[in-house]
Amino acid sequence: MGREDRKRPATLRTIAQSAGVDVSTVSRVLNGSPEDAARAASRETADAIREWAARLDYRPNPHAKSLRTQRSNLVGVLVPRLSDVVLATIYEGIEDAAARHGFATFVMNSHDRPDEQRARTELALSRRVDGLVFGDAHHDGGFVDEIAQRRIPFVLVSRHAGGHPSVTCDDYRGGRLVAAHFLERGHRRTAVIAGEPFASTGIDRTAGFVDRYREEGLDVATVHSRFDTAGGHQAAEQLLTEVEPTAIFAVNDFAAIGALGAVRDARLRPGADVAVAGFNDTPLAAELPVPLTSVRSPMHEMGRRALELLMTVLDGGTPESQRLEPELIVRASTARP
Amino acid sequence: MGREDRKRPATLRTIAQSAGVDVSTVSRVLNGSPEDAARAASRETADAIREWAARLDYRPNPHAKSLRTQRSNLVGVLVPRLSDVVLATIYEGIEDAAARHGFATFVMNSHDRPDEQRARTELALSRRVDGLVFGDAHHDGGFVDEIAQRRIPFVLVSRHAGGHPSVTCDDYRGGRLVAAHFLERGHRRTAVIAGEPFASTGIDRTAGFVDRYREEGLDVATVHSRFDTAGGHQAAEQLLTEVEPTAIFAVNDFAAIGALGAVRDARLRPGADVAVAGFNDTPLAAELPVPLTSVRSPMHEMGRRALELLMTVLDGGTPESQRLEPELIVRASTARP
Repeated sequence: MGREDRKRPATLRTIAQSAGVDVSTVSRVLNGSPEDAARAASRETADAIREWAARLDYRPNPHAKSLRTQRSNLVGVLVPRLSDVVLATIYEGIEDAAARHGFATFVMNSHDRPDEQRARTELALSRRVDGLVFGDAHHDGGFVDEIAQRRIPFVLVSRHAGGHPSVTCDDYRGGRLVAAHFLERGHRRTAVIAGEPFASTGIDRTAGFVDRYREEGLDVATVHSRFDTAGGHQAAEQLLTEVEPTAIFAVNDFAAIGALGAVRDARLRPGADVAVAGFNDTPLAAELPVPLTSVRSPMHEMGRRALELLMTVLDGGTPESQRLEPELIVRASTARP
Repeated sequence: MGREDRKRPATLRTIAQSAGVDVSTVSRVLNGSPEDAARAASRETADAIREWAARLDYRPNPHAKSLRTQRSNLVGVLVPRLSDVVLATIYEGIEDAAARHGFATFVMNSHDRPDEQRARTELALSRRVDGLVFGDAHHDGGFVDEIAQRRIPFVLVSRHAGGHPSVTCDDYRGGRLVAAHFLERGHRRTAVIAGEPFASTGIDRTAGFVDRYREEGLDVATVHSRFDTAGGHQAAEQLLTEVEPTAIFAVNDFAAIGALGAVRDARLRPGADVAVAGFNDTPLAAELPVPLTSVRSPMHEMGRRALELLMTVLDGGTPESQRLEPELIVRASTARP
């Protein structure tokens, strides 16, 4: 009999599969308060879950259990703004993973304003969250450093800052992918619409792009902008006049869409005359009049992993930051005739 | 001296304008707990606000004040899902209006699942919200009826149900606008992709459209679908085969985008061969390869007014439901060659 065949204590997941219910339901029935258990499942379902737990020799981890009983099983999430589908999708990943652990989540917009970040965080803490996920960290660290000093459990998602535990896309690598693609298409005079200077996403994507071009001995024009369509439009207008690039990399899709508009307004053909690439591969990218080349970032997965990382923090483990792999999706906006 | 010139007691807004700060800051300094006041403003700013309040003869409404002191100044919001930009935008309207009243908000996804609606609502209540805004009410009322019986302050937004206070778009009128437009373009064999049967949005938009056609003695094919692109695609495929309509009204933009794809897949030209119209006029609509005719609903305004309506409820006033005016935006997807 091999090691694989030895009987191992059941996990919540095994019980859930056997009983045909969600892991979160099992967790609440076996580990929650009586009220919570009653809300989670009908009496019949709860009985079935307890029966499977006994049959499968389920023994709750006593350490986890004792931690759990002091918990609120609630996680607060801060993002710049939810009307940005990137953040809304990351939040759905957080929420899905939280449900699997029997945790609930809620989310608030901070609009990237330090006063709102602070006020919303205090609010979440006053509502007894077990921990926080910040999708709005500023690269200088400032505020999250303070949260860390107060020993409040948290992780960062989408943006990293000050060496705190984070799950991000490998944005630097994403920037390099775009540069390599532009170089392969023969572009030597290029520009980057770099986004807000306080977000690691824009900083890293720009750095990756610029570094790859420097390796070829070529300089790149960069300009900061808001992360939205109007910001991208304005930045591209300036670049088209002052730099006359043959290719523009905008560090997110919204800014790239603005850049496409500016290219058309200048009576140039996106793709044919000026290549434009974005970042995130939002659902919009493929649907545009000139479909947009973009770097796909695993948004939902990023949220999911951020929540898992927070669970590691809450369980007293050592959290390791993760950078998820980006993928370049080439479409007509960087095609040449 | 006319009535207009008589000195009237200052409002929070007047003080805010005089002191050059947000209304929410004034509210927290003058009406909040000492801790809240200290968090809201520096000592200098707080002193300046109190000085302006004295100078402008500010007298807090004693009734409002007594209510306020028992309040948490926190509002919970439930929506089906935030990756739907319609709901994320409505939420931003709620949040903006709340800030003006010195209230904070948070939001949760219920995915239109009754068990999640219930669990998230209980969670919000356990975190001592003053009231709730539901963007996910089901037309049968069920759950919100129960909340009303428990005398929990709430309003509905986007969808109405069971006569509870709500702020919605006049969806019925929006449906009629699309029908009138199709009739004017000569379409007699039409179909509606009606969305989920539990949402008043889909129900009313469909009813408005169908009623207008019935007035001309014409029947309309209708089919239910999910509210997303895949749902719209599938529904349109079925309609194109079984009904062969010359015009399709999808009750939201995502379903309409799916319908546009199905029309192209059937080797028909959107606009030229089959007209397609959507609802909400999301930012995507104007950017599509064939720009989408859509009914514009005032999403941000809807959220703003829903929060104001909740304030009326919290202040013991009589809330009156509101239906905001829709506007038809005609684009190429309903043009005929």
